Amino acid sequence: MWSFGRIIDRYATNGYGPPVGTLETIELAARTKELTGLDLNYPFDEGVTVEQVKAALTAHGLTATNITPVIYDRGFRSGSFTSADPDIRRAATDLAHESVEVARALDARYVKFWPGQDGYDYPFQVDYPTLRRHAIEGIRDVARNFPDVTFAIEYKLKEPRNRLFWSTAAASLLAIEQMGADNVGLVVDFGHSLFAKENPAEALSLAHSMGRLVDVEVDDNYREWDDDLTAGALHLVETLEFLHVVRTIDWPHPLKLDLFPYREDPGEAVRESVATLRSLEDAAARLPLDALHAAQSRHDAMAVQRLVRTALLG
Amino acid sequence: MWSFGRIIDRYATNGYGPPVGTLETIELAARTKELTGLDLNYPFDEGVTVEQVKAALTAHGLTATNITPVIYDRGFRSGSFTSADPDIRRAATDLAHESVEVARALDARYVKFWPGQDGYDYPFQVDYPTLRRHAIEGIRDVARNFPDVTFAIEYKLKEPRNRLFWSTAAASLLAIEQMGADNVGLVVDFGHSLFAKENPAEALSLAHSMGRLVDVEVDDNYREWDDDLTAGALHLVETLEFLHVVRTIDWPHPLKLDLFPYREDPGEAVRESVATLRSLEDAAARLPLDALHAAQSRHDAMAVQRLVRTALLG
Amino acid sequence: MWSFGRIIDRYATNGYGPPVGTLETIELAARTKELTGLDLNYPFDEGVTVEQVKAALTAHGLTATNITPVIYDRGFRSGSFTSADPDIRRAATDLAHESVEVARALDARYVKFWPGQDGYDYPFQVDYPTLRRHAIEGIRDVARNFPDVTFAIEYKLKEPRNRLFWSTAAASLLAIEQMGADNVGLVVDFGHSLFAKENPAEALSLAHSMGRLVDVEVDDNYREWDDDLTAGALHLVETLEFLHVVRTIDWPHPLKLDLFPYREDPGEAVRESVATLRSLEDAAARLPLDALHAAQSRHDAMAVQRLVRTALLG
Amino acid sequence: MWSFGRIIDRYATNGYGPPVGTLETIELAARTKELTGLDLNYPFDEGVTVEQVKAALTAHGLTATNITPVIYDRGFRSGSFTSADPDIRRAATDLAHESVEVARALDARYVKFWPGQDGYDYPFQVDYPTLRRHAIEGIRDVARNFPDVTFAIEYKLKEPRNRLFWSTAAASLLAIEQMGADNVGLVVDFGHSLFAKENPAEALSLAHSMGRLVDVEVDDNYREWDDDLTAGALHLVETLEFLHVVRTIDWPHPLKLDLFPYREDPGEAVRESVATLRSLEDAAARLPLDALHAAQSRHDAMAVQRLVRTALLG
Repeated sequence: MWSFGRIIDRYATNGYGPPVGTLETIELAARTKELTGLDLNYPFDEGVTVEQVKAALTAHGLTATNITPVIYDRGFRSGSFTSADPDIRRAATDLAHESVEVARALDARYVKFWPGQDGYDYPFQVDYPTLRRHAIEGIRDVARNFPDVTFAIEYKLKEPRNRLFWSTAAASLLAIEQMGADNVGLVVDFGHSLFAKENPAEALSLAHSMGRLVDVEVDDNYREWDDDLTAGALHLVETLEFLHVVRTIDWPHPLKLDLFPYREDPGEAVRESVATLRSLEDAAARLPLDALHAAQSRHDAMAVQRLVRTALLG
Repeated sequence: MWSFGRIIDRYATNGYGPPVGTLETIELAARTKELTGLDLNYPFDEGVTVEQVKAALTAHGLTATNITPVIYDRGFRSGSFTSADPDIRRAATDLAHESVEVARALDARYVKFWPGQDGYDYPFQVDYPTLRRHAIEGIRDVARNFPDVTFAIEYKLKEPRNRLFWSTAAASLLAIEQMGADNVGLVVDFGHSLFAKENPAEALSLAHSMGRLVDVEVDDNYREWDDDLTAGALHLVETLEFLHVVRTIDWPHPLKLDLFPYREDPGEAVRESVATLRSLEDAAARLPLDALHAAQSRHDAMAVQRLVRTALLG
Repeated sequence: MWSFGRIIDRYATNGYGPPVGTLETIELAARTKELTGLDLNYPFDEGVTVEQVKAALTAHGLTATNITPVIYDRGFRSGSFTSADPDIRRAATDLAHESVEVARALDARYVKFWPGQDGYDYPFQVDYPTLRRHAIEGIRDVARNFPDVTFAIEYKLKEPRNRLFWSTAAASLLAIEQMGADNVGLVVDFGHSLFAKENPAEALSLAHSMGRLVDVEVDDNYREWDDDLTAGALHLVETLEFLHVVRTIDWPHPLKLDLFPYREDPGEAVRESVATLRSLEDAAARLPLDALHAAQSRHDAMAVQRLVRTALLG
Repeated sequence: MWSFGRIIDRYATNGYGPPVGTLETIELAARTKELTGLDLNYPFDEGVTVEQVKAALTAHGLTATNITPVIYDRGFRSGSFTSADPDIRRAATDLAHESVEVARALDARYVKFWPGQDGYDYPFQVDYPTLRRHAIEGIRDVARNFPDVTFAIEYKLKEPRNRLFWSTAAASLLAIEQMGADNVGLVVDFGHSLFAKENPAEALSLAHSMGRLVDVEVDDNYREWDDDLTAGALHLVETLEFLHVVRTIDWPHPLKLDLFPYREDPGEAVRESVATLRSLEDAAARLPLDALHAAQSRHDAMAVQRLVRTALLG
């Protein structure tokens, strides 16, 4: 939904465009004719009901892939599940519970946590064992309350906090293992992975191998920040490898886009991303798998390059 | 002024605190009892006149160090002097002209350009010679109109654009040389320099050696983004070296702070920064200059370390 | 030992100094009068026996903290435990076994793996599940053969490979958990942690909380590469926090230094590092723990900064 | 020549392969059948004469594009033109003069300086104005001695020093302007530019617009280090844009490759790079220039993406 909403940043505090409401966002998304599902932030705009959202989705032939409780705005600016304030931790839990109900009402596949304020900014600011305990227990308690619901954590190295607890795929999987909840997994976002200094394809493979992959998002950036550029704008080879792993693991769900078109028309950004992803999926389908596996079994970088180049550039 | 205003970002679009007006900002700044001058963004809040600002400054014993035309918000989201749209380029020029008048009315020492939207986001997006020409000519024309006014450019590697034209000290000095205007110089911001992969002390020395240093700002970050943490929060040695150069060149003006205390009380952030800078200035004053120069003339890193450690940690 | 040996890089292929043998290295280390133990690479120089090394250590009142099998030079340039070639995987295992014997003979506390060639350079180069399996099983098999011996893995994001398997603290801890060997843990190197985009103090706390901390190394860098500068050369606050955690967890062993003084006298680099660490340990001892914990329980960055600044700078 | 020589690094000090002599290198380069010219380091191997090199080049139908004096190995480990030691500064000058003679004897187009040891490692280590003076005057004096010879500086952000003087395109162009020598320009290396946080296409355009472009090198990396991967291995779009600028400015010389195939066959790395570059040149030729210029004149990122995607992926 972010892709279609009004974008604001710390400089253009009057926004990069006019305000856009929840229902209008759904309509804009539908107009691209490229999307089948939406990641819906909750709470919705004031006055908008779940029923209205459901009707809007149905009217446009869209689904809600997931509900994302907004545990990262002003009220949670110093943390949600890891806040120093027990009332705020409770508010995060309450919002998570509500989000589960909304997800059920909208037949969403899962509830997504993006704990973008859970972390710290300065050395010495927090006691690390306490932060860790709050981060893990907060989500564990929600997950145990709803054992039949799927939850996913979208990790990110930083922003808006300078250091986030759910920072990398491995750090998040390690914490999820310690959590001991079967119904919690990961959203692997290509861009988040890239700027966490991971190879996104390897992160995807890791999350899947542990049975913890819940969703997959695509976008691009300059490897140092979550720029949320259109998919494939910069890293075609690594996006191709990402899509190759998506194929390899027989991923059954559509890919999600996570874009921030500050200055671009969001519809165009979606269409351009989809077109690039389709080209890359075609290239992935052209990869000769036997030759690729043979080259990989020798760790033969040059042979692999040749196969990739041929599939991609002809 | 940013330090005291309401901070918003792309996630906490409802802001990290309540809105704060121009005049209230001045009052908040005054209350820290640590500041003597302010960097004032222009236009002011709607309805606030230059006279009111002047009165508020006088009442609090503050000055305006400089006026910064807001050429980086929604209206200029795709560029100011380098916009593809000639009307927007003209609007940037007009706002710069107005800012000069305001600067004169407030006895500000200079007008600052922070062209944070002048650049691009994607490869191939712009024609580089054209971008360069617009960037240089836009500021040159303003500077020539007011040969008795000092102008300064605050460079930054990126944000909000992914790539900014006025990116590093050297890139900016090269462009200023090509501009051929004597009354245009640089603001060297410690944090911008650090995350542009410069050594801030060297950048400061370079700008000064070319006669182009107009102002000096201090803050800190994790070397990868403009985090705007309190001064000395992380990089004590490099901040010390920066202050050492400030002393060496007999810099006559007070240092400026450029902080973004998203979750902190701005007054505390200012006081903590000032206290750290005072400690570091004391340490700089304790450096035995003869021994330091002797060690530097041998490029003797270990001897230099010993002197710095002793001055800093006793 | 690296600190005292001859340093070579890809440009100065004739070395940054004359060759230095195993026994000479021990003597050079002893002369600093600051070291009590050494990290010894194995195999030793041709012709040097374990007995000679033992005698040299004893003569100088030094111990071997650990033995590090050289599984990262020419013979293992494309991987050790993860090599595509089963003969090379076996050679890594054999060298590890020999290293255990040497460690026993020298009363070393543990055997360290630094799998600096285990990873890959290009996208698509390897099959990630296979790489993961080899990395984990290779070390697991060695560890199970010697259940009474402690093993430690020193993780690093990259170099010499562009991507290493044992990349971050969390990635390594996750793999160690999957390995299921009680006698395998981590070496946390401040510099490796810093350039892996971790906060070293948090990584240390994490490894300790899982009972997997085996050793602690100190050095410094510019956050982007393993520059192996002297301890505290750049990041005093973060080194202080690291030492604070070392105190907090009652770490019983001496800290190790991991320096690469390409152009400096290694003895001076050690002495300068030790002097800085002593100053920082004094500062850590001055931190008022009750006030610190109270501030941390509020996540109060400014209060924490004040305490840290006062302890560090007076 | 590096691509074909023996690669050594600080860990594999016994080299990534057997030693390879100057003449053997020429033969290996010839065997790729893809290269027409070589960048020759000077001095050659002991005992190898200029005549022998000339004969070997002729025999294989190759030319020397340029001579690169080795001012970055052990003798110059603490600087060449900027060394604290006047004898070493003189040795750098002498080697530069010899290189000019060799370049003339071999009809090389220019003499290249890669001042990889000219810089510093620690804060406070050097006096910046002195470093700057030495760096500029050293090369200026050589250039003035041979006004009919072309000299080029290959800039690089760092490595082996942590900070290099000739760090970015803009920093180098600024210093060259201050130098006041018409016969000194830049080598723009795609990889160096990328990891200096520049956009390589923009850097190329800048150097050319100032009449200072002497040579162009291609390779690839992960944006944080000079990994010297094969061309186009990772950054196809940015390499395409780089080649587009090469076309736009009617660059008359062949592109150079700067690879470090640590674990790969150098011939294969060259052939794979050349094949990728050919594909990208074809794509560059397919770009509809009128439509591209129209989109660029609007800064229309999405329109530009569409054109680039179509040219590249069909």
